[in-house]
Amino acid sequence: MMTKKHKLWGGRFEAGLEDWVEEFGASISFDQKMAKYDIQGSLAHVTMLGETGIITAEEAAAIKAGLEKLLEQYEAGQLVFTVDNEDIHMNIETLLTAEIGPVAGKLHTARSRNDQVATDMHLYLKAKLKEVLEKLDHLCSVLVNLADKHTYTIMPGYTHLQHAQPVSFGHHLLAYYNMFARDRERFAFNLEHTDISPLGAAALAGTTFPIDRERTSDLLGFAKPYSNSLDAVSDRDFILEFLANASILMMHMSRICEEVINWCSKEFSFISLSDTFSTGSSIMPQKKNPDMAELIRGKSGRVYGNLLGLLTVMKSLPLAYNKDLQEDKEGMFDTAETVTVALDILAGMLDTMTVHEQVMSQATEQDFSNATELADYLADKGLPFREAHAVVGKLVLECTKAGCYLQDVPLERYQEISDLIEEDIYDTLRSHTAVERRQSLGGTGFDQVKQQIQQARKK
Amino acid sequence: MMTKKHKLWGGRFEAGLEDWVEEFGASISFDQKMAKYDIQGSLAHVTMLGETGIITAEEAAAIKAGLEKLLEQYEAGQLVFTVDNEDIHMNIETLLTAEIGPVAGKLHTARSRNDQVATDMHLYLKAKLKEVLEKLDHLCSVLVNLADKHTYTIMPGYTHLQHAQPVSFGHHLLAYYNMFARDRERFAFNLEHTDISPLGAAALAGTTFPIDRERTSDLLGFAKPYSNSLDAVSDRDFILEFLANASILMMHMSRICEEVINWCSKEFSFISLSDTFSTGSSIMPQKKNPDMAELIRGKSGRVYGNLLGLLTVMKSLPLAYNKDLQEDKEGMFDTAETVTVALDILAGMLDTMTVHEQVMSQATEQDFSNATELADYLADKGLPFREAHAVVGKLVLECTKAGCYLQDVPLERYQEISDLIEEDIYDTLRSHTAVERRQSLGGTGFDQVKQQIQQARKK
Amino acid sequence: MMTKKHKLWGGRFEAGLEDWVEEFGASISFDQKMAKYDIQGSLAHVTMLGETGIITAEEAAAIKAGLEKLLEQYEAGQLVFTVDNEDIHMNIETLLTAEIGPVAGKLHTARSRNDQVATDMHLYLKAKLKEVLEKLDHLCSVLVNLADKHTYTIMPGYTHLQHAQPVSFGHHLLAYYNMFARDRERFAFNLEHTDISPLGAAALAGTTFPIDRERTSDLLGFAKPYSNSLDAVSDRDFILEFLANASILMMHMSRICEEVINWCSKEFSFISLSDTFSTGSSIMPQKKNPDMAELIRGKSGRVYGNLLGLLTVMKSLPLAYNKDLQEDKEGMFDTAETVTVALDILAGMLDTMTVHEQVMSQATEQDFSNATELADYLADKGLPFREAHAVVGKLVLECTKAGCYLQDVPLERYQEISDLIEEDIYDTLRSHTAVERRQSLGGTGFDQVKQQIQQARKK
Amino acid sequence: MMTKKHKLWGGRFEAGLEDWVEEFGASISFDQKMAKYDIQGSLAHVTMLGETGIITAEEAAAIKAGLEKLLEQYEAGQLVFTVDNEDIHMNIETLLTAEIGPVAGKLHTARSRNDQVATDMHLYLKAKLKEVLEKLDHLCSVLVNLADKHTYTIMPGYTHLQHAQPVSFGHHLLAYYNMFARDRERFAFNLEHTDISPLGAAALAGTTFPIDRERTSDLLGFAKPYSNSLDAVSDRDFILEFLANASILMMHMSRICEEVINWCSKEFSFISLSDTFSTGSSIMPQKKNPDMAELIRGKSGRVYGNLLGLLTVMKSLPLAYNKDLQEDKEGMFDTAETVTVALDILAGMLDTMTVHEQVMSQATEQDFSNATELADYLADKGLPFREAHAVVGKLVLECTKAGCYLQDVPLERYQEISDLIEEDIYDTLRSHTAVERRQSLGGTGFDQVKQQIQQARKK
Repeated sequence: MMTKKHKLWGGRFEAGLEDWVEEFGASISFDQKMAKYDIQGSLAHVTMLGETGIITAEEAAAIKAGLEKLLEQYEAGQLVFTVDNEDIHMNIETLLTAEIGPVAGKLHTARSRNDQVATDMHLYLKAKLKEVLEKLDHLCSVLVNLADKHTYTIMPGYTHLQHAQPVSFGHHLLAYYNMFARDRERFAFNLEHTDISPLGAAALAGTTFPIDRERTSDLLGFAKPYSNSLDAVSDRDFILEFLANASILMMHMSRICEEVINWCSKEFSFISLSDTFSTGSSIMPQKKNPDMAELIRGKSGRVYGNLLGLLTVMKSLPLAYNKDLQEDKEGMFDTAETVTVALDILAGMLDTMTVHEQVMSQATEQDFSNATELADYLADKGLPFREAHAVVGKLVLECTKAGCYLQDVPLERYQEISDLIEEDIYDTLRSHTAVERRQSLGGTGFDQVKQQIQQARKK
Repeated sequence: MMTKKHKLWGGRFEAGLEDWVEEFGASISFDQKMAKYDIQGSLAHVTMLGETGIITAEEAAAIKAGLEKLLEQYEAGQLVFTVDNEDIHMNIETLLTAEIGPVAGKLHTARSRNDQVATDMHLYLKAKLKEVLEKLDHLCSVLVNLADKHTYTIMPGYTHLQHAQPVSFGHHLLAYYNMFARDRERFAFNLEHTDISPLGAAALAGTTFPIDRERTSDLLGFAKPYSNSLDAVSDRDFILEFLANASILMMHMSRICEEVINWCSKEFSFISLSDTFSTGSSIMPQKKNPDMAELIRGKSGRVYGNLLGLLTVMKSLPLAYNKDLQEDKEGMFDTAETVTVALDILAGMLDTMTVHEQVMSQATEQDFSNATELADYLADKGLPFREAHAVVGKLVLECTKAGCYLQDVPLERYQEISDLIEEDIYDTLRSHTAVERRQSLGGTGFDQVKQQIQQARKK
Repeated sequence: MMTKKHKLWGGRFEAGLEDWVEEFGASISFDQKMAKYDIQGSLAHVTMLGETGIITAEEAAAIKAGLEKLLEQYEAGQLVFTVDNEDIHMNIETLLTAEIGPVAGKLHTARSRNDQVATDMHLYLKAKLKEVLEKLDHLCSVLVNLADKHTYTIMPGYTHLQHAQPVSFGHHLLAYYNMFARDRERFAFNLEHTDISPLGAAALAGTTFPIDRERTSDLLGFAKPYSNSLDAVSDRDFILEFLANASILMMHMSRICEEVINWCSKEFSFISLSDTFSTGSSIMPQKKNPDMAELIRGKSGRVYGNLLGLLTVMKSLPLAYNKDLQEDKEGMFDTAETVTVALDILAGMLDTMTVHEQVMSQATEQDFSNATELADYLADKGLPFREAHAVVGKLVLECTKAGCYLQDVPLERYQEISDLIEEDIYDTLRSHTAVERRQSLGGTGFDQVKQQIQQARKK
Repeated sequence: MMTKKHKLWGGRFEAGLEDWVEEFGASISFDQKMAKYDIQGSLAHVTMLGETGIITAEEAAAIKAGLEKLLEQYEAGQLVFTVDNEDIHMNIETLLTAEIGPVAGKLHTARSRNDQVATDMHLYLKAKLKEVLEKLDHLCSVLVNLADKHTYTIMPGYTHLQHAQPVSFGHHLLAYYNMFARDRERFAFNLEHTDISPLGAAALAGTTFPIDRERTSDLLGFAKPYSNSLDAVSDRDFILEFLANASILMMHMSRICEEVINWCSKEFSFISLSDTFSTGSSIMPQKKNPDMAELIRGKSGRVYGNLLGLLTVMKSLPLAYNKDLQEDKEGMFDTAETVTVALDILAGMLDTMTVHEQVMSQATEQDFSNATELADYLADKGLPFREAHAVVGKLVLECTKAGCYLQDVPLERYQEISDLIEEDIYDTLRSHTAVERRQSLGGTGFDQVKQQIQQARKK
């Protein structure tokens, strides 16, 4: 391990850093998450340095052998990092020097920590984005399967948390499918802006060495290199896009989790969660809590915070690299980990819940959620909708006072109200009929729900 | 104007709203910005209602004629909206009733304010997104033209606001071009998620009327209708994407504005802004302030706030429509207006600034920003980069104490330090040489800058 | 009205501003909200200028007369402001000049717009804070009165939205009383940091004129003047405190509104809102929506956004005044208006709601929220709590399968489970008993609730 | 260690949690930071349980002995926590059971994890707030000492980053002193809301056991117990206040750090940082970067994010405890650690910097920052300020074109401009005179600065 006096940037300095100051500036406690990517980046760089003759083939071979050994050790959990070496790049370089001697110093030719750390982050996020896409696919398929199973399960559709109109539970679930499908599109787009190589931008201005940036980009599996070196080392848009997409995703998850929590309440009793996705109370023996749904809902705060945090960091930063940018990592790591686990938990929770279909559908039979049916019935027979609406409103008030529902109103009373109303009104008022007849494109009618499922399966 | 007793949803209600409560709930003070789109949406809806026979051709014609008249009046600035009518939809409907009588009531057949307001917002944002894309194009072309003009203007490249390496000012400007070009891609992607029609989703569940959603989508110029009615009325992703993209854009603008403010300072004196984009002081007669740059920088706060505001609103909202969603509009309007004007101001400010090329380039001649050249020179001759770095660091310290620069060190002293150093070191140390020789892809070398300009012009 | 050529700071400038640029920089569209305070500030300033002899008594008298006339006109709604005059200060000065001629120019002696605008904002916020404090007092008294009325109303206490233990509804309401009482303390503390006069700090450094800052501070009713001029013109802490306090307040309101929305749902049916605080649906005639509660809940987003907006604006701003600071106003105005109206709406909504006491208390009789009673009963008789907890947990599971509750389990079965259980267990399990017996300090026991009410009334 | 089947809340459950789900829900990875406070809380609780006879004196003694042993082991770094035991409370309880056997189960009598975790957090934050107050005091004294040393050091005072008027560097530093002094007041107020004991609120409703909450509050050094049990377990205001205060503090630090970064630039060259608070570059040997200032500036983002995160978590949460609240801890810990270290770093950095007084004061001699002096000079002699301002503005423009400053204008030219100008104008225009004469209260005049220092020292 290097002593403090020999820090790689220390030539110009007379006094060393104090420990506690050094620790404040060090990033090794968190950037070691990118160790694998840092070594991969170095392998690509040294391969290119050898191929272009910037260093000799022997030097390149020695460095590559050393790096590969470090990679093995890393994967075996054997690398030890120290705060003295500040960040992951210096730690790896120090370990490499210990492994292969001073030739390790040639690895840093035509490269800076500025382009190196950017490369690591691009590699890390590319890998995480692919994971997120897979987990979103899984969640989407859970939702579509559930929708298929519950196409004919009827529940109250809500607006303002009031019963509005009966809907298919499958239709309700497909609304969430659509949200997550859009999330998928956003992360896929995000991947395009992540899949670009900053390696070779050096500190900020490129280099006088005849490097081959296309080659390192290819070696690392990137689509292309950045076209401007200043931009390459200071661009954090790809992370901001990720944090914004993750915030929208967490928002969607917070919505379905809020509903799950409502549905689990004694008052709704629409579903029960499996024991695997519930917990109990240390003081109240009867409790079965939807903890996982609450945690996911709560974790929206953390992800929103990470987004705002990086937006704040970046605000007003002049070009090119500034140390403030070191603050870009923890929020990215935390968000990637939060989102990937939350997706799995949500999929598992939904997949294993028990749906109380009777409770759901009964809830639509003792309410006024068929009021629109009556208004549409009248409008269909020629009454201007606004008048129909007013007529039904008054009748609902009358029923409320009498303690009955629209299906309980006798035909005579209906015909007093309007001679447009006939016997068939009672079938119209059934919630099954109400759902079935909503055959407009994308509506909750059973056939429409089936079509949505078919389309979703195609993707 | 309707009296309060006849509110369109009032049939069920016995007591009216009090004025101050009503005002709290009303949105007409801001949603009137969507008046044009609301009328357009109604025109498409009524056309379809007539074509499908849901209402008669005569009814449809009467309603269309009335709406077209309102549109004319609106464009002539003659429509008067009132808080009594709560929102833009009710205001327009009331005005229409006044114009054509009770047949106006048929317009609301097979439609709800939930899908209507969503349609208005999609139409509004589509229009604004196109405006943003145009203005971004203009800003990009201003930057590319400036870069072209200043390819050979040399300035200090900074990291940590310290002179790092000399760069082409054109190269520096192209870094911003790249940021704004990515912004453009994000807004173009955003447009895809905005270009979808919610019309016909009705309140939340679709409708029993045989409407044709493809038709209204086509009439309004949308790419397609939403495929799930619950999603259609509760989706605000397209606005969140817009606010997130706008936040990233404002962050980019805050960065270039921070630089402009620095460059205008007495200490930098790299540029002067035109009088058109500067203001003075009411107390200090000598001041010429970069107010516009400061305002744009500051307005990042407003846009970040709008993003976080809507993310907060949406968190934990159960399906489908909830009144909380009314809070989606003001932030969207404010952001759209802020971003479009800020883009114009920034483009104008950059386009008209005077660049003090001499000051910029002199700044690179009395500093140590050529230290990397010396280190690379040594590395190029075979010294491991890490050793070269240490050697140069010590020499910089020696110069600092002696009050001179690297170009002032006599050859004898150089050769004492390393016998690798020869007479050509002095040319190497010139900032023009340093820039010229950074020919790595995307580097600041003049030829590289020219290539970047060519590529940018192709787009 | 002044022409553009004669802008007050225009001496140094050769070209004028273009209109659209000018409009971007102008603040008159929103800072006119401070017109009254701007005139009051000028009155205090000119009084002091006259008293100290900086201007003559005649000049002071003329200017005061002019300002008083403007104040009258303002209050009569007769002042017309223009964008040409940029901000409220310039508008007032221009109007004053039109009123009294060139002597108006002396008003600006020993003052700058920087200290002037800061003074206006302090005066504005002082007034608004007092309003907020009054409205909080009112809300608190509504809550305490309701708690008094509902001390003996029993409802399920929730954790994780699951029935946990029965509580007094009065106790539940007093939890909110405590939150709002803390809000009150925060705003009162905020007032101390607002009640300081920046007037006389001039542009940033104070002035060479022999002004009397104590005098203007007294005249304006401030507690004291700022002790550092640079701080006086650049401090926005008092606004940030306000926005942070308002965010916490809105969070509290969002919580009680969420509960109100739940309680209004068909599933809970714990309360009904009065018609005054509800609205209906344009398509579903039966709907009675808790719109006001939803709007308040949603408006938390706007206030959070305003807080984060200003925090972002202030980040990294060097001393002293920068134009970015113009962005401090709209969020402050918007927050003050949102918070004051929301407090009134919430108080009115709670004050007029109908509580369905039977529904609430019945909800505690058909659940397991008495499970803790049984565990405590056993622990009280000597069983370690952890064992008692486990025993009850198993019994709850047994009941769930059998479709009964703890009060339905026969004594024999209880005595099989533990010989510590006797006949008195059935009284113990009643929710009324459970509430009554929670007599620990601050607990839900009726006597404790009464004590809380007494304490609250004392404040 | 307990097996999963015997989780303390597991009686009701048939299936266990899966490991990865369990890990998502567990908080031990971070809440172990509160281990000491958790044990202290338990010690107070068991002392009270023994004193009130709820458990026997022997039981209490045994539990206390066990807890004290755990505390010793904890302080020796010997306690091992496991995810299987979910959180710090369960871990401690499990370790206690291993230590003293089943009597440990009695510790949980009349207590829940809900009041326990709230107690831990109050104790943790009280300790941290005291630390923050001390560090703020230190920073304030560093600033006051520096101001004392630099009362007579003259620098350009800036608005819009333009030279505005010369000021005392001491005065400039005292502006920051005032910000941090207000921060101190805010944290002291925060302490009052933190210094309240939730212990004994139990799960949400208090307890039927005759506990003594005043006693545990006293034992733990709290000022008083919470007066409402539901509020006690769900209140997180004290943390939000902390995060808001920390955000404002970080904002202040970001401002002074921005200035430090500017002052270290080649262009300003006002100060040099000590090597201890600077770092170098791995590629550019000449670099001496103000990394610590940049990091502190950047860390404002993290703290803002933590604030927004918790505000988001709390939004719309119904009473009482919800699992979402588990998300309250990491942001609090992170903020407390960030703020305390940043305060030390900033104080150290300022304390050890070298101020280049000559450079600073020269910067005020070759600029127009004395323009206000000329305008005030004319106003003082009776010219309305607005006219004086215009006259000077034109003269500045004339000088700019001629390449000279106001002090270079010959007396004849002055007298052409206005016969009010005499020979004494040249002394008036000296920056030393300009500073000296700004004797208004709180102004930058040397005597005023000295008075500010005296006042600050009194605190």
